[in-house]
Amino acid sequence: MKHPDAVSNLAARLKRAHVLDSVLELLDWDEQVNLPPDSGGRRAEQTALLAGLAHEAATDPQIGELLAALEVSAELLDDDGRVLLREARRDYDKATRLPTDFVTEKAALDSEAFLVWQSARAAADFQRFAPYLERQLAMARREAAYAGMQARPYDYFLDHYNPGMGEGTITALFAELRSGVVPLVQAIVASPVVPRDDLLKGFPVAAQQALLREVTAALGFDFRRGRIDVAAHPFCSGDAADTRLTTRFKPEAPLSALFSAIHESGHGMYEQGLPLEHLGTPLGTHAGMAVHESQSRLWENQVGRGRAFWRHFEPRLRALFPEGLAGVSTAELYLAINAVRPGVIRVEADEVTYNLHILLRFALEQQLFAGDLAVRDLPAAWNAASAEMLGLTPGHAGEGVLQDVHWSRGKFGYFPSYCLGNMIAAQLWETVRTAMPDLEDDFARGDFTRLLSWLRNHVHVHGRRHDTPALVRRATGHELSAAPLLRYLRERYAALYLSDGG
Amino acid sequence: MKHPDAVSNLAARLKRAHVLDSVLELLDWDEQVNLPPDSGGRRAEQTALLAGLAHEAATDPQIGELLAALEVSAELLDDDGRVLLREARRDYDKATRLPTDFVTEKAALDSEAFLVWQSARAAADFQRFAPYLERQLAMARREAAYAGMQARPYDYFLDHYNPGMGEGTITALFAELRSGVVPLVQAIVASPVVPRDDLLKGFPVAAQQALLREVTAALGFDFRRGRIDVAAHPFCSGDAADTRLTTRFKPEAPLSALFSAIHESGHGMYEQGLPLEHLGTPLGTHAGMAVHESQSRLWENQVGRGRAFWRHFEPRLRALFPEGLAGVSTAELYLAINAVRPGVIRVEADEVTYNLHILLRFALEQQLFAGDLAVRDLPAAWNAASAEMLGLTPGHAGEGVLQDVHWSRGKFGYFPSYCLGNMIAAQLWETVRTAMPDLEDDFARGDFTRLLSWLRNHVHVHGRRHDTPALVRRATGHELSAAPLLRYLRERYAALYLSDGG
Repeated sequence: MKHPDAVSNLAARLKRAHVLDSVLELLDWDEQVNLPPDSGGRRAEQTALLAGLAHEAATDPQIGELLAALEVSAELLDDDGRVLLREARRDYDKATRLPTDFVTEKAALDSEAFLVWQSARAAADFQRFAPYLERQLAMARREAAYAGMQARPYDYFLDHYNPGMGEGTITALFAELRSGVVPLVQAIVASPVVPRDDLLKGFPVAAQQALLREVTAALGFDFRRGRIDVAAHPFCSGDAADTRLTTRFKPEAPLSALFSAIHESGHGMYEQGLPLEHLGTPLGTHAGMAVHESQSRLWENQVGRGRAFWRHFEPRLRALFPEGLAGVSTAELYLAINAVRPGVIRVEADEVTYNLHILLRFALEQQLFAGDLAVRDLPAAWNAASAEMLGLTPGHAGEGVLQDVHWSRGKFGYFPSYCLGNMIAAQLWETVRTAMPDLEDDFARGDFTRLLSWLRNHVHVHGRRHDTPALVRRATGHELSAAPLLRYLRERYAALYLSDGG
Repeated sequence: MKHPDAVSNLAARLKRAHVLDSVLELLDWDEQVNLPPDSGGRRAEQTALLAGLAHEAATDPQIGELLAALEVSAELLDDDGRVLLREARRDYDKATRLPTDFVTEKAALDSEAFLVWQSARAAADFQRFAPYLERQLAMARREAAYAGMQARPYDYFLDHYNPGMGEGTITALFAELRSGVVPLVQAIVASPVVPRDDLLKGFPVAAQQALLREVTAALGFDFRRGRIDVAAHPFCSGDAADTRLTTRFKPEAPLSALFSAIHESGHGMYEQGLPLEHLGTPLGTHAGMAVHESQSRLWENQVGRGRAFWRHFEPRLRALFPEGLAGVSTAELYLAINAVRPGVIRVEADEVTYNLHILLRFALEQQLFAGDLAVRDLPAAWNAASAEMLGLTPGHAGEGVLQDVHWSRGKFGYFPSYCLGNMIAAQLWETVRTAMPDLEDDFARGDFTRLLSWLRNHVHVHGRRHDTPALVRRATGHELSAAPLLRYLRERYAALYLSDGG
């Protein structure tokens, strides 16, 4: 077989597997958005059957043969071909090294542990969940061992979610971040400036929906190949061909739906910016969870909580819900949008204290995998870390160690993506603002196209061509660092809380 | 292998194939309800891949081996086992006798012919569609030949949609029906009683939604394993585990959404009444399209357009949209709900003239398959039949010969199901009213449970155990006949149009 034929055959087989994955994603989306309450059993059957077929497609021996054939003379490949070969090999080895028994056992454990976690969280009963966490940790060690990483299992998972990001690198980055965020939070907490928390109460859902639809379309989310619906948890699913976002409306937090929709449309615009012709192959796949998170964070925080954005959208907000902002000044609104208040719940945290929640989880995951922390001692360790980092101790395990879904699914090493995403967002933001100093003038006019184009060209279009450090280096000209995030946070929040600029 | 094991193995394989079918149905539902406008290409890829996998599952050689093993000593099977074996054999032979090339060619033609039909209808240009209709007819003849029915291809399709219903039987039933419906329509058209057509204009969609939700729940559609959404065309998809209905809101026909929702929930309640434990096997599958249609028609017409139903729901309608019925009497409302007006469009027809639309199509399909009518002569034949049956000639092909989607998909022999469904509905209705003379007193109180239970026990629970004639005979004690439908139509419409009872 000629090289070009082998490359296109390989791409075709990867795309076929991806089509099955995309059906699985749609089943999951539909489960969270539409599924009637008593139809869960049928959905489980559909998902189990499709997951088996998708795994068969991803481990198709013909993929292995094509990879082997291409590797014999990889030097003949063009750049795209080399990326395809390298990344397809990575995925194929990962998928095929896991015995089918392991995959089945893991799927069953994920499902069972998730349900136990739900009930344990509701009952604030860590002991109920502890045996499942033990089992997930054991499974994680086995999975790392299958990949030949038994000596550094945590590193295996960190690299899994963010290619190129090892434990040492992240530890150093997080230490740098911590040294800057902790004093900033302390200064904000000590500030006499206190945001109002009584704005926009009773913002009608229909008006919220109109606003978030208008905002996400203005930012650049393409509704011709995507949509936004309501689900219990906000998420982005699908791919560039059909991108599905969700949001949810919280009566007690009237702008929460808007910001979660901006966040998810950041994820969605990244997916929509991946090259459609390569969809289903590594060239048309995102570069990792931190890069993904950088896109959602940049649109949510740097853009969506910025003054220029609100210069354009404040009048729209006031028009849609005049009573909610009667007697509220622009400065008060802007401060409320950028309220910083340490709390015990990660998903409710502002963009400053959010980082502390991740540092806490990263430290605990490191200790768990290093064998320095036993599962039974985790709640106490969590509470101590929370007191140290956030100055707050959770009232019970449900709002402490049991608050996140990730560990129930065995998703160790995922949490750092959120914080790395914050860093990458800030570093991209610093770069783009240096390149286009008048960029925010566009925002004040409701025009976000220059920013989206820049992200398309510097991030989206590359798919998985580069690992995370290389992608950041190429896009920004610098190694990934916490410094831009710290500069960004200090600039925005010092102006609000630590001067007369509130 | 022991018989019980072979039976359960066979059922498991059929259920597996059905799970894939159910994913395909969900993809189709999602396409019609949710799919973003530019995501059609992706959906086509997903559907093609899944359809191939579903066909593989349905033609799994192990099903053939299990069938052969069971047939060796079929006399040892219990009644359920015999039904399973008989019907699974029928399906398996149908699926395996079609060469894969034929299936692929047919799928491609269906898709292409549908698009051509859409544009031809919009342009009212029959010549554009004619070559595709020729090809679909040729494909239909080939399909019948693969099944050994080359001498009677139309019979093959009639039996395909309605097991046990042959061309001779249907011809006789339709002649009986015609002899009664034609004079009834003539008498109604000549009547001085004319329904108002100015009611409920501007019925707000939100209020319509509230009403149709309340009505369908009261009738017995189970929203815990089903839902209703909005799509361009009303339909029912899914099965007992997850039943999805659609409706659509027409500003110019304010009760159209309600009646289409009642109609679809009739289909949905049939699906929901099939035995869940047999889902995916013939014991948990509907008995044919005429029986299916009988359920939707019975709920829509006999129940939903009846006086007792409106005794309960008229106050609700007036409460939801008081302006729309201001100055309108109960008699005027009821007459408008039962308006009879011959028109050229089948899907807009009332329940009396609807039958004439089907008789017309059946006669033309018979002539096409008998070779007595060429495709090029079809528009003229259509117009002549329309003038004869309905007293109206379509203004153009778009509202005449091109009005229905069925032929573009090669669904010949499907149309009679609608009329047979009307007949079965009326025959079931006559039976149940004889058994429970006070049944409509329940309706006037908003209670429909006795009717649903009766249908569950006499129709739904049997799945595909009986063919259409046998099911009707067992449920009603009589052979299927047009007489009950004629008695029902004369009773209801004579009272409205041909006496003082209007």
